[in-house]
Amino acid sequence: MGSSLQGRDILRTDTLRDEELRLILSTAERFEEWLKAGSHLENMRGRVMASLFFEPSTRTRLSFEAAMHRLGGGVITVDDPMTSSAAKGESLADAIRVVEGYADVIAIRHPREGSAAEAAAAVSIPVINGGDGTGQHPTQALLDIYTLKKEKGAIDGLTVALVGDLKNGRTVHSLVYLLARFDVRLIFVSPTQLMMPADITDNLLARGIEVSVTEDLAGAMRESDVVYMTRIQKERFEDPTEYQRLKGAYVLDMAMVEQAKSGITILHPLPRVNEIEEEVDGYAGAAYFRQAHNGLPVRMALLALVLGRE
Amino acid sequence: MGSSLQGRDILRTDTLRDEELRLILSTAERFEEWLKAGSHLENMRGRVMASLFFEPSTRTRLSFEAAMHRLGGGVITVDDPMTSSAAKGESLADAIRVVEGYADVIAIRHPREGSAAEAAAAVSIPVINGGDGTGQHPTQALLDIYTLKKEKGAIDGLTVALVGDLKNGRTVHSLVYLLARFDVRLIFVSPTQLMMPADITDNLLARGIEVSVTEDLAGAMRESDVVYMTRIQKERFEDPTEYQRLKGAYVLDMAMVEQAKSGITILHPLPRVNEIEEEVDGYAGAAYFRQAHNGLPVRMALLALVLGRE
Amino acid sequence: MGSSLQGRDILRTDTLRDEELRLILSTAERFEEWLKAGSHLENMRGRVMASLFFEPSTRTRLSFEAAMHRLGGGVITVDDPMTSSAAKGESLADAIRVVEGYADVIAIRHPREGSAAEAAAAVSIPVINGGDGTGQHPTQALLDIYTLKKEKGAIDGLTVALVGDLKNGRTVHSLVYLLARFDVRLIFVSPTQLMMPADITDNLLARGIEVSVTEDLAGAMRESDVVYMTRIQKERFEDPTEYQRLKGAYVLDMAMVEQAKSGITILHPLPRVNEIEEEVDGYAGAAYFRQAHNGLPVRMALLALVLGRE
Repeated sequence: MGSSLQGRDILRTDTLRDEELRLILSTAERFEEWLKAGSHLENMRGRVMASLFFEPSTRTRLSFEAAMHRLGGGVITVDDPMTSSAAKGESLADAIRVVEGYADVIAIRHPREGSAAEAAAAVSIPVINGGDGTGQHPTQALLDIYTLKKEKGAIDGLTVALVGDLKNGRTVHSLVYLLARFDVRLIFVSPTQLMMPADITDNLLARGIEVSVTEDLAGAMRESDVVYMTRIQKERFEDPTEYQRLKGAYVLDMAMVEQAKSGITILHPLPRVNEIEEEVDGYAGAAYFRQAHNGLPVRMALLALVLGRE
Repeated sequence: MGSSLQGRDILRTDTLRDEELRLILSTAERFEEWLKAGSHLENMRGRVMASLFFEPSTRTRLSFEAAMHRLGGGVITVDDPMTSSAAKGESLADAIRVVEGYADVIAIRHPREGSAAEAAAAVSIPVINGGDGTGQHPTQALLDIYTLKKEKGAIDGLTVALVGDLKNGRTVHSLVYLLARFDVRLIFVSPTQLMMPADITDNLLARGIEVSVTEDLAGAMRESDVVYMTRIQKERFEDPTEYQRLKGAYVLDMAMVEQAKSGITILHPLPRVNEIEEEVDGYAGAAYFRQAHNGLPVRMALLALVLGRE
Repeated sequence: MGSSLQGRDILRTDTLRDEELRLILSTAERFEEWLKAGSHLENMRGRVMASLFFEPSTRTRLSFEAAMHRLGGGVITVDDPMTSSAAKGESLADAIRVVEGYADVIAIRHPREGSAAEAAAAVSIPVINGGDGTGQHPTQALLDIYTLKKEKGAIDGLTVALVGDLKNGRTVHSLVYLLARFDVRLIFVSPTQLMMPADITDNLLARGIEVSVTEDLAGAMRESDVVYMTRIQKERFEDPTEYQRLKGAYVLDMAMVEQAKSGITILHPLPRVNEIEEEVDGYAGAAYFRQAHNGLPVRMALLALVLGRE
């Protein structure tokens, strides 16, 4: 019973079939149980992952590399915004084709949208997209879904508020397309300048997803089962007084949690700056660190599945 | 018989109990014998160490990472004075809490004093301090003690001269507190500007340690069993002529070794610049490279003990 | 039957005996077969390689590190043009002597010619030169020879054109000395300003190698079994109009391949900038990516042989 993901690239979430998504989530769950039991996994013994981070992202890189180590495999790393060969004028495709000879699977992060697909087209080993500019970040969206499932038991029936910079946020774009496969209600909470792009909202509505749009975080939290916070960056605003007016409204503190729907789950892709007060960390539904930790079993699942070693 | 160090952080040397110090030294000795016998150790199979070097220190980092590999474990590394997440405004505690989900143990070096304790407080996995600014450097002090024991057979009864910048030297501060647990005589050799801080000297005297203070290295070497050299940095002097006068006095050469107490052992935490002439390297008592190499079994011992896998 | 290379440094190609060269090539061949069969190699279980890249060279570093992982060993890495200890004024010999205590074998790349030999002299563990400035790059030359043997079946009888900057090209210098051990004819194709140094050409002629010198790439390709392309750098020319005149002449495209000797094999040490048009990549004799991939079994062979674990 070979996996349907063996030999596949993981470049975006919208091309994953529902049964593939279920396979990823169930494999991650199994790995998490093994990790908790302290089992030694040897699935990747003798295998090598190339971790190519042409843009710094410490947490994503460490998570991929830890995943490979936990599976018993080895890792070779490039952690350099401008590699020596790129500095000499080498194309990304050439660089990737060389690495193909050294590794069994590639995890790549690159500042340019489309670069992960370009890398995948250049080689025959599986490529996993660790974020390509304003493009996709599929492993983040998958660990978000995995977290929702673990925290809430099921995703169907949930009302999820997505908060912050919904215009530029790669993470929320990847996430809503995965959420749209479930029976969810979405609330988009952002300043008008940073609203979810219309084409995404239209696409969701066309798929029958109920979507509300508001600037009012406190109001949204009163009817949400989950609130997904993201950063609002000052430099996105043309009018600094507008930023001053809004920034306080999108800082989540315990007073807001106490006014929210009972049992609300709080997520954040991290790093946070000041979007969530530290006082919230002790709240049982503050799941953002558990969410980050879920990156490990989810990335283990992806690595094992694309190499057919789950 | 679980180790008394399982689950513990190693943040400083002064809170280690005597029996814990003995356990570390005897475990390191055992690991060194196994290394020499070419044994394959699998104690850490399936385990991952996060090596978080927010301040460059190549030798300490490589020593920790080699220790983990020698125990059969995997390593994820951050080797970056300013990580991407810190650049985005993330707190150290947040960064460490994320890594907690990926690794079983953390080795951290950070330029700010107290940062290792801050990291340890944020997570429930063991944290080993690889040097925090002007604070502590416990693994260096432990390998120094291990080296003294190996080179001299026993530490009780030794006269140890500590030489150089005793005012700012984190290494010598950590070391004298460990030495004070033994029946030793200490000679502090430094320019007046760079004397051992009075509170440290007072503490040692209160504990009954015999301490002499001098500017005369040659004289100190005539009565010492061990001389521990450290660097004197020009920038510590307000008066450059004072630096010129003193710098020659603290350069150890063969002529000084020949005038010293017979069999004197020479230590240095490395890197050296010109504190010890290369001609001294061939002298049997020149133990500074053996001292650096002892970092491997000592760090193996610490990693294995805090994870209960010795 | 211990290997004749156990305990040896690999610093240059001209001191390798013919039987040692054969041993390296046959060992690499065996490792390549094992890799293709998907075998788990455990030759280096418990062993550690220090990968010391004091000059960036992503592909060489990744190739060495992947080789060690494929053999089941661990890797500690320095990937920094100016290490912290060198910045403090430490000598290369001191830095290497410290690392000797952590690792079983060292792969080093350094911008200064002679530095690999200096490192090897400082320690008793094997040192493999990964390129030292304008000096040697023996592992590249060995993988080039390995590639020629694989692509053409045998090296004796071949006519090999070496093209580009033959004056400054460390790679071609190391390679021609290895080629000279076989019954080959060499054609040096370069602008007059970038000709092969006279002492090398004289040495080859003295050894009975037939050498032709020309500026005409197309002509050379009509009589060559192999063309080895290298980069020509603009900054090597005093007269920019001269560079303009020549640059087009040394760009290999399909039209040139079609006029060349039938079955010609095209090599390039990579990275390429524009020396070979991408349209050539699909040509069956375009072997430069296979050449790069051959770095893996060749470096596996070297690591295993010098540690006596083949």
